[in-house]
Amino acid sequence: MQIDRSPLARPFPQLPDIAGVTLRVARARYKTWDRCDLTFAELAEGTAAAGVFTKSACASSEVELGREAVKLGRARALVVNAGNSNAFTGWRGRAAVEAIRAQVSGALGCSLDEVFVSSTGVIGVPLPIDRAEAGITAALEAAPCGWEDAANAIGTTDTFAKGAGASAMIGGTRIEMAGIIKGSGMIAPDMATMLGYIFTDANVAPAFLQEVLESANAATFSCITVDGDTSTSDTVMVFATGKAGNAPIESWDSPGADAFAAALADVCRTLAQLVVRDGEGARKFITIRVSGATSDVSARMVGLSIANSPLVKTAIAGEDANWGRVVMAVGKAGEPADRDKLSIAFGGIWTARNGVPVEDYDETPVAAHLKGEEIDIAVDLGLGDGRASVWTCDLTHGYIAINADYRS
Amino acid sequence: MQIDRSPLARPFPQLPDIAGVTLRVARARYKTWDRCDLTFAELAEGTAAAGVFTKSACASSEVELGREAVKLGRARALVVNAGNSNAFTGWRGRAAVEAIRAQVSGALGCSLDEVFVSSTGVIGVPLPIDRAEAGITAALEAAPCGWEDAANAIGTTDTFAKGAGASAMIGGTRIEMAGIIKGSGMIAPDMATMLGYIFTDANVAPAFLQEVLESANAATFSCITVDGDTSTSDTVMVFATGKAGNAPIESWDSPGADAFAAALADVCRTLAQLVVRDGEGARKFITIRVSGATSDVSARMVGLSIANSPLVKTAIAGEDANWGRVVMAVGKAGEPADRDKLSIAFGGIWTARNGVPVEDYDETPVAAHLKGEEIDIAVDLGLGDGRASVWTCDLTHGYIAINADYRS
Repeated sequence: MQIDRSPLARPFPQLPDIAGVTLRVARARYKTWDRCDLTFAELAEGTAAAGVFTKSACASSEVELGREAVKLGRARALVVNAGNSNAFTGWRGRAAVEAIRAQVSGALGCSLDEVFVSSTGVIGVPLPIDRAEAGITAALEAAPCGWEDAANAIGTTDTFAKGAGASAMIGGTRIEMAGIIKGSGMIAPDMATMLGYIFTDANVAPAFLQEVLESANAATFSCITVDGDTSTSDTVMVFATGKAGNAPIESWDSPGADAFAAALADVCRTLAQLVVRDGEGARKFITIRVSGATSDVSARMVGLSIANSPLVKTAIAGEDANWGRVVMAVGKAGEPADRDKLSIAFGGIWTARNGVPVEDYDETPVAAHLKGEEIDIAVDLGLGDGRASVWTCDLTHGYIAINADYRS
Repeated sequence: MQIDRSPLARPFPQLPDIAGVTLRVARARYKTWDRCDLTFAELAEGTAAAGVFTKSACASSEVELGREAVKLGRARALVVNAGNSNAFTGWRGRAAVEAIRAQVSGALGCSLDEVFVSSTGVIGVPLPIDRAEAGITAALEAAPCGWEDAANAIGTTDTFAKGAGASAMIGGTRIEMAGIIKGSGMIAPDMATMLGYIFTDANVAPAFLQEVLESANAATFSCITVDGDTSTSDTVMVFATGKAGNAPIESWDSPGADAFAAALADVCRTLAQLVVRDGEGARKFITIRVSGATSDVSARMVGLSIANSPLVKTAIAGEDANWGRVVMAVGKAGEPADRDKLSIAFGGIWTARNGVPVEDYDETPVAAHLKGEEIDIAVDLGLGDGRASVWTCDLTHGYIAINADYRS
């Protein structure tokens, strides 16, 4: 089945080279396709690593080993396999990840725990060790490539390559940041997974890098949803080579810590939104802004309840200002809410205020807003200062076509 | 938009008259349609009442008043309005419910709290008091009607009338039970709501009736899902007139308590499954049996995670034995699970055992099972004795068509 490029796609941006990062891609041929499907990022000695991983209780061996290794905070290499997720493959799957780590640590002269592996694609089929080894051998001999090549090589059902960059001034030193991500729907046919990697030349202590990533993650990757489904392999990692030469950022008190965190959050937000833009069957990009909640976390939960509601998503697909479905989704969120304080707006126009429809409500400008590609829903709970933004896409016949009509 | 009768529909059953219950229907004309849309059930003096209501934080005034009144445990009348949910209508909506209660209590000479009201249909429009009053006046003068007429009158976007009955022997006395329900999708266009009412001539103490209903609800209505969405008006009530003359059932120690509870659970299960069979766009009825969980509640949560997964539901629609999506849904449920102890079967045939695909797995019989209308998914978590069954339907183009293409 040929899946068309998403109408919400964005062109791949110009991204800077990151000192201390060398990208290479190769053909491991995990599927019967003629494309690069193994990505190898070599990282300078001393690179700091941080990562956040799926909370799935059925996570892959890649995630299990990555979760442990990232606690040591150091990385020399990242290997990403596309076409086979190696999930639900028992000890054979684990052996494949360990074989990859052994081969790479031997080639680079680093520890096993400095080699991070991700895999994405079909599940239940152990990653073939011979293909992985041949692919890594080919990658080690390949010429370095650019960001877009790597972004394409980590993709599976993605309909466009996704990247984002940022820079910041850290105590007079300019640092660069570049990230790539794959994912179309939280899960595409056969659990396509969200895998994101951000690289920077900043000098950042591993523990603080982890803290900044978790903070950025809470407001970005944790605020997107396509279908509420969660892959067994979702991973976002940050690697900081330190080659920019700035004074190390070790805590929020270090000079430039805020600037670095802002740049990382910016890249994470852009990457997260690009995944939504490649949501299966997506034709509209929806921003849901929740305010007046009892806390930021509560605001996010309400926002995700709206964003995950099939009835809200189909109403947007149908360009229908059905704010009643938003009320329903707020009500079922399980968070503090008061029907008589609830207000709802589409495209900046309030349709309901304090629990009742706005008098003399004119649907014309709302209908015009809903015909566009970028939809804005605002919900004010009228209870407190908690706020959050959440991003999703509409639910269309395209989603059904990709996920039901397609036979794996 | 004309919505076809669900292919999973069942004929309306023969249901017994229930002594002490008189049903009447009338035209309140809440919408511009020519059909009965107001249902009035008159109940004998001394009728015990029990109810479970939506947990939505944005519940309608009907639900708010019903939750309070049911604590008193007595009912003389039920009024159900179809075509207008009266939800999100502020004080005007509340005034409409209070006007209905006042009119009926005056006509029957009972207290306000013995009159229960439900409304279902469009939201954000206060229920017109004049139409409600004229409808009740007409109902009071109308000839009594049968169960199927009442089942049709409470329906909105339902494609078929839904009813179920049972009988039981209580200490030598035969008691009868009859129930009707409406709902197609947890939520149909404009929040169609699930409203269910069960009537029995058994003599049951109100507090015990509530306990038995809550127990039955946990294993039936709480185990169905169409799209994971929850209406602001969902209500299930039981009315026991006591006219059968059995010795009162007051606790689990009373003679016949188990038989009564079994009959009620049976009616609740059938009614719940009928709602799934009218799920929007449903073409397959899916039973998900979870075993080996750490508790029954945990098993139900895992079952609902599977049943609510758009990826699982689209896979079934596509007749695809994509057990990887079931693994994903188990993993994201947030309940205890161990990838390496997980087993999954379709139609009684195990596709994965203890975390790995079954060797020499033959897809032929599984593919044949998936072509049928009744789909069975079994998941064994391998951890404990907790078990639950959950029912849902597939996610098809029909759901999108009803909810996106339809303009409210």
